[in-house]
Amino acid sequence: MACPYPLHRRQIETILLAWGMPEAHAARTADVLGWADLHGVESHGISMLVEYDMRFRAGRLKMDPEFKVVRETPVSILVDGGGGMGHVAFAMAVDAAIEKAKVSGIAVASVRNSSHFGAVGYFTNLAAQAGLIGMGATSAAGIRVAPTNGAEARLGTDPWSFAAPSTDKNPFLLDMATTTVAYGKIRNKMNENVSMPLGWGTDNEGRPTTDPLDVTRRGGFMSPLGGTPEGASYKGYGLSVMVNILSSCLSGSTLITDPMHTKKPKGFDIGHFFLALDPKLFREAGEFEADVGTLCAALRSTKPVEEGKPVMVAGDPQWKMAEERLRDGIPIGKGLRAKLIAVAQAAGVEWLLDGLDSEQAAQGRPELAGS
Amino acid sequence: MACPYPLHRRQIETILLAWGMPEAHAARTADVLGWADLHGVESHGISMLVEYDMRFRAGRLKMDPEFKVVRETPVSILVDGGGGMGHVAFAMAVDAAIEKAKVSGIAVASVRNSSHFGAVGYFTNLAAQAGLIGMGATSAAGIRVAPTNGAEARLGTDPWSFAAPSTDKNPFLLDMATTTVAYGKIRNKMNENVSMPLGWGTDNEGRPTTDPLDVTRRGGFMSPLGGTPEGASYKGYGLSVMVNILSSCLSGSTLITDPMHTKKPKGFDIGHFFLALDPKLFREAGEFEADVGTLCAALRSTKPVEEGKPVMVAGDPQWKMAEERLRDGIPIGKGLRAKLIAVAQAAGVEWLLDGLDSEQAAQGRPELAGS
Repeated sequence: MACPYPLHRRQIETILLAWGMPEAHAARTADVLGWADLHGVESHGISMLVEYDMRFRAGRLKMDPEFKVVRETPVSILVDGGGGMGHVAFAMAVDAAIEKAKVSGIAVASVRNSSHFGAVGYFTNLAAQAGLIGMGATSAAGIRVAPTNGAEARLGTDPWSFAAPSTDKNPFLLDMATTTVAYGKIRNKMNENVSMPLGWGTDNEGRPTTDPLDVTRRGGFMSPLGGTPEGASYKGYGLSVMVNILSSCLSGSTLITDPMHTKKPKGFDIGHFFLALDPKLFREAGEFEADVGTLCAALRSTKPVEEGKPVMVAGDPQWKMAEERLRDGIPIGKGLRAKLIAVAQAAGVEWLLDGLDSEQAAQGRPELAGS
Repeated sequence: MACPYPLHRRQIETILLAWGMPEAHAARTADVLGWADLHGVESHGISMLVEYDMRFRAGRLKMDPEFKVVRETPVSILVDGGGGMGHVAFAMAVDAAIEKAKVSGIAVASVRNSSHFGAVGYFTNLAAQAGLIGMGATSAAGIRVAPTNGAEARLGTDPWSFAAPSTDKNPFLLDMATTTVAYGKIRNKMNENVSMPLGWGTDNEGRPTTDPLDVTRRGGFMSPLGGTPEGASYKGYGLSVMVNILSSCLSGSTLITDPMHTKKPKGFDIGHFFLALDPKLFREAGEFEADVGTLCAALRSTKPVEEGKPVMVAGDPQWKMAEERLRDGIPIGKGLRAKLIAVAQAAGVEWLLDGLDSEQAAQGRPELAGS
């Protein structure tokens, strides 16, 4: 069963409102989380409400934080997220950087004293929709990744995103953790009782393993992109440190290697980074977008390894998914559904996502234009 | 046998001068190539003269190009490299971006109509030495990398570099091809007659292989970082496209997927990208550098997998190498030495690097300060 996007998004919004989030903040946060589910980034959508609910009950989710612009120039903005959720704090910084880049050609935003903000691709896509190149990154709360040749977790999944406008219907949109895979993929292999490819993780002594239980149950670690020292994991590790430098060192947030990371009274103190760049600094209007479109089309035309499995470019799977889900609705698995119903009940709001059939889902569609 | 750095650098310079390069250009190009050898990036140092010599004899190396500033704003510069070698064209753009970033807080440089410029880490390190964050990238001449799920080469090694100043003696310096490994590593496995790790390359149908001959002799391809679809090579592939978008689409250089790539009469038409960012947009003087130093120190203190093989951060192996080579000189292997002697002879310049012993090497050292 799948539910139409507008209802899905509205369910997120009603729970946030019930937790005491101001209306404008709840609307934007629901946009960010709903976008993730719509585009198939399910790890960063409505499922996050289960985690947020735990934080909310633990008194660790400030629903009405005071955002402050700490520093500002024509090419930069530094926002203090007030110890709240990250979606709206980051959106405020991103929106400002986009406006500044439209005027100055380039602008950079930094956010400190924030927390989880959803999928970074939502934000770099905003830049691309405005005709700009977008780069985004954030430091992480969870410490799960061992550096190359290391036998201790020191880093997070530390995502990096890059978006560029294109004459294609949709932008080029890369949104990647700097680990080989997401933790959920390792957990899924454990649940299926099968081994995982070498390079996804290590045992608790930092040695590459194919047993998912080494990571999930025996104190092992996730691996940086590249997977093993032989596979050049120092590159994924280096990108992860780059993300931490841009997100934490630049904003003045607590370093992930600091013993007080996520433990300070003021909140999670996660840092974010964003950059917007106008191609018209270098090209005539439309030339850049045409080149990106041409490059992506050439890559898609590459002879495939397997017939019927065409070469794609970053973003293609997400745009295709969004098209399908706008038409057919967004599915929620049984296990997650039960957890979300409990979250809604605890918040005292109505559960809106009870299995609609596809006709009802279709009826939900027209609302999207106004959302 | 190893030769002192100043002599090594001087040998590069004499050959470039003999080819007709203006003095100032030859000095800077020798700095860039010498830096690479000094820091152990041997693929991008004096060994390049063998390749350049072939291009020179083929009339494809313009030694006295006219560089033009095509567009300029307080935060950007676009340089036309005049179809010449890339080192000085890129250096001109990088130097300008660094000066602009010191004033505006951030600046971006783009170069078109250029060619190979050496190691991108040389340039991002310049930003870090000036107290700025540096990002750099370039498109490539060689087409050797198949996209994820592709059975044709479409991309190059497409390097990305990121540098950040630190309270450490040296900056954080990541300089990486977006492929799993350099082509030379695959060739070395072939020469040793041993298999290579899965993820370094594919056969000519795009299927992962451990036989280096599949890549070097049977028409196979290099793999993007991640190595295989299961190892998330779409991330390395995505980074490679990002590098092409920033280097080629932004500058207006010929796309690597264009049939006329490197074949246009005006030259190789390779594009480069550089960005400089002043941390003082967000932090008080010294705070950012202190955080980078603290982060790197914490990472180095990670419990290692193998005793005696400590965890490093990006740049550490290069700084260590430079210290050793400043002291002991720069070695050149027999095979390369023979080729370089032929290049020097063809250029009609003296061969300066005849096996000095370590005492002579030590005597060469004082010259460095003035170089």
